[in-house]
Amino acid sequence: MTARRNDLRINEKRFWESMTASGQIGRGRTTGMSRLALGDDDKKMRDLFVGWCREAGLAVSVDGMGSIFARRKGRENDLPPVLVGSHLDTQIAAGNYDGVLGVLGALEAVRTLNDAGVETRRPIEVVNWANEEGARFNPPMLASGVFAGVHELDWALGRTDLSGKTYGAELARIGYAGESPVGGREIDAYFELHIEQGPMLDEKKVPVGIVTGGFATRGMKVKVLGETAHTGPTPMDRRKNALVGAAYLITALNEIGWHYHPEGGKSTCAQLEIWPNLTGILPEWSVVVMDFRHPTVEGVERMRQDVEAMIPEAAKKANVEMRIIETWRFGDEAFDPGCIDLIRSAARDLGVPHIEMLSQAGHDAYNMTRVCPSAMIFAPCDKGISHNEAETMKPEEAYPGVNVLMHAVLARANR
Amino acid sequence: MTARRNDLRINEKRFWESMTASGQIGRGRTTGMSRLALGDDDKKMRDLFVGWCREAGLAVSVDGMGSIFARRKGRENDLPPVLVGSHLDTQIAAGNYDGVLGVLGALEAVRTLNDAGVETRRPIEVVNWANEEGARFNPPMLASGVFAGVHELDWALGRTDLSGKTYGAELARIGYAGESPVGGREIDAYFELHIEQGPMLDEKKVPVGIVTGGFATRGMKVKVLGETAHTGPTPMDRRKNALVGAAYLITALNEIGWHYHPEGGKSTCAQLEIWPNLTGILPEWSVVVMDFRHPTVEGVERMRQDVEAMIPEAAKKANVEMRIIETWRFGDEAFDPGCIDLIRSAARDLGVPHIEMLSQAGHDAYNMTRVCPSAMIFAPCDKGISHNEAETMKPEEAYPGVNVLMHAVLARANR
Repeated sequence: MTARRNDLRINEKRFWESMTASGQIGRGRTTGMSRLALGDDDKKMRDLFVGWCREAGLAVSVDGMGSIFARRKGRENDLPPVLVGSHLDTQIAAGNYDGVLGVLGALEAVRTLNDAGVETRRPIEVVNWANEEGARFNPPMLASGVFAGVHELDWALGRTDLSGKTYGAELARIGYAGESPVGGREIDAYFELHIEQGPMLDEKKVPVGIVTGGFATRGMKVKVLGETAHTGPTPMDRRKNALVGAAYLITALNEIGWHYHPEGGKSTCAQLEIWPNLTGILPEWSVVVMDFRHPTVEGVERMRQDVEAMIPEAAKKANVEMRIIETWRFGDEAFDPGCIDLIRSAARDLGVPHIEMLSQAGHDAYNMTRVCPSAMIFAPCDKGISHNEAETMKPEEAYPGVNVLMHAVLARANR
Repeated sequence: MTARRNDLRINEKRFWESMTASGQIGRGRTTGMSRLALGDDDKKMRDLFVGWCREAGLAVSVDGMGSIFARRKGRENDLPPVLVGSHLDTQIAAGNYDGVLGVLGALEAVRTLNDAGVETRRPIEVVNWANEEGARFNPPMLASGVFAGVHELDWALGRTDLSGKTYGAELARIGYAGESPVGGREIDAYFELHIEQGPMLDEKKVPVGIVTGGFATRGMKVKVLGETAHTGPTPMDRRKNALVGAAYLITALNEIGWHYHPEGGKSTCAQLEIWPNLTGILPEWSVVVMDFRHPTVEGVERMRQDVEAMIPEAAKKANVEMRIIETWRFGDEAFDPGCIDLIRSAARDLGVPHIEMLSQAGHDAYNMTRVCPSAMIFAPCDKGISHNEAETMKPEEAYPGVNVLMHAVLARANR
């Protein structure tokens, strides 16, 4: 039973029931979700997921960052496994599909192989990466980052949320500080199914996007250094208002985004810390978190030059100092042509319409390109809305992607 | 003993010892103070102050907003009292003089009258207004505002700090939810000594400023309404980033401040709330607190027109909606020519150099103009620095103002 089984299809009802069950854990303000990493609802969802994995006969292990691995034996069980998954945590205002689709899609693929009695040469592991969103513990893609050697384990465990609680303490509190080493083992390949979080598939009414690469992304934190003073008597020419400095940065960054808009570029500031942020006293410092993205590495580097040139101008306008205190990048990573081919073949053999595209968001798959050949599949979401409680998709828009995922993984696991 | 006593002078040593004792309660990060309203340190300072008042033979009462009144009997004790004081709470980063000088200066004046056996026709009450700064519970000048009928008592007691605690609950916790009615009684006059919080007296080396009026000030809160979305895939022309909207507001407000700078105008944004303020998700809403000030009412009204005209432009640039959700004003209030004359005469009789000037900050005295004839005296502070831990003044810069305060109050209390 190792040959391609083009007749094999997931159990749509069971899969969507699992998705629906997930949608009940960590409800948001209205229709959506708010299941922040390592909170009580994340624990509930993990417990449910682990139960499902055990029912499916999978061996569950948890690593020191709290990522969950559910392993299905292969015939040659010592070979490096094929990893497939995504994340079960959500943003603070989210839907039930971002991340969840990829984990429960992977689980459904394995359940379907079980039902059909399909064995594979290599083991397959379904993975739930911890804290992909970074909505509670910065940065995003944290656990896969440690797995891939991008971050140090101790540094990651020491990250704090806004109330000062550490990642390590919260992981222990919910009972998911696992004993498996984080990374450091051979992985054959990594596959991830995810909603597009952009409008293209929805507009074209195509159910599968084959992700060939990512938007090149650069990020930085800029610290703005001003000086407290009374907001009343201090004349304009003696003010060093760190919030005004931040505002000049944010508007200049926004205009750079618009300048590159025709080429597909964009820029974001979504987070700003201000101290003391009170009426009556000019702010002493602020920290602006900003990023910018472009379809090409060459383009994002032009954007970076523009951003670096505007920082001293913004500082001058507000009579403050500015320092870049942290930088990061992602999206330059290449997905593996072999894995992409397996996805392309699966889609073709199953007769699923598909297009090729770039990913614009960050994903755990970027980190995994440092460890093993990796690739991603996108499914449509309504109008491309995501990180918003209105994020939604129809069941029939999800099924083709899960079937393509299953067949690509099956092919790789038999390689 | 009711005649003018030009030989009467405060006990400088005792006064400065009291100031120094205050400076030990609620120390800041380095040299300064951080004694936020209704915190544990505010309670300690209140307890110390009440003890001093009782030692001085004053009858202490506390009103329903936590303001403390320490009454020295007059010969005609049924006449409305002369009120004199300021506030003992501080900003989050402050010195030991803003507010404190006026309360302990008033106490020293009364102690000196006691020592000299000086009786007055009217009673004199030393007042510590609660929560003048508004650093913890917005708005500033809250308790004097309720006293003067500007705010409703229940509304004020329900104001919350950033952790969600209410003013009323915190006041009860520190034991200063008093039983006296808030306001509603006749007051003969109000005098307040305060540091200038501007550079003029320090530059001119003049120890007393006679405040003839205030900078006209207008403030508003603007709510910016955007929409959450993923920071990655969402193209520039579909973004409704409420933080970018706030930034366009803040920079435009700053430029209006500069436009009016030659006329003495200024503008401030020192506080900005953002939700959800996380990386990866475009902010849904923000609230920008802004104000602008001008030496004249006519000038500040021109500024207001400019601000109101720029709001829709800023909204358009960020593709968001904006709504003015709250407005306030102060500084139009006129100080009383009779009280100002008493201060002027006292300074002249004592041979204290003085100039006349406008106040640029808000003070409890503005609220009191609605209740009774009121006036203010300014003392110099080093380089005009205030709302900053570097705020400082020398003892010999403080004494002349306290003596002028005492003689003006004495004259009014014998009227």
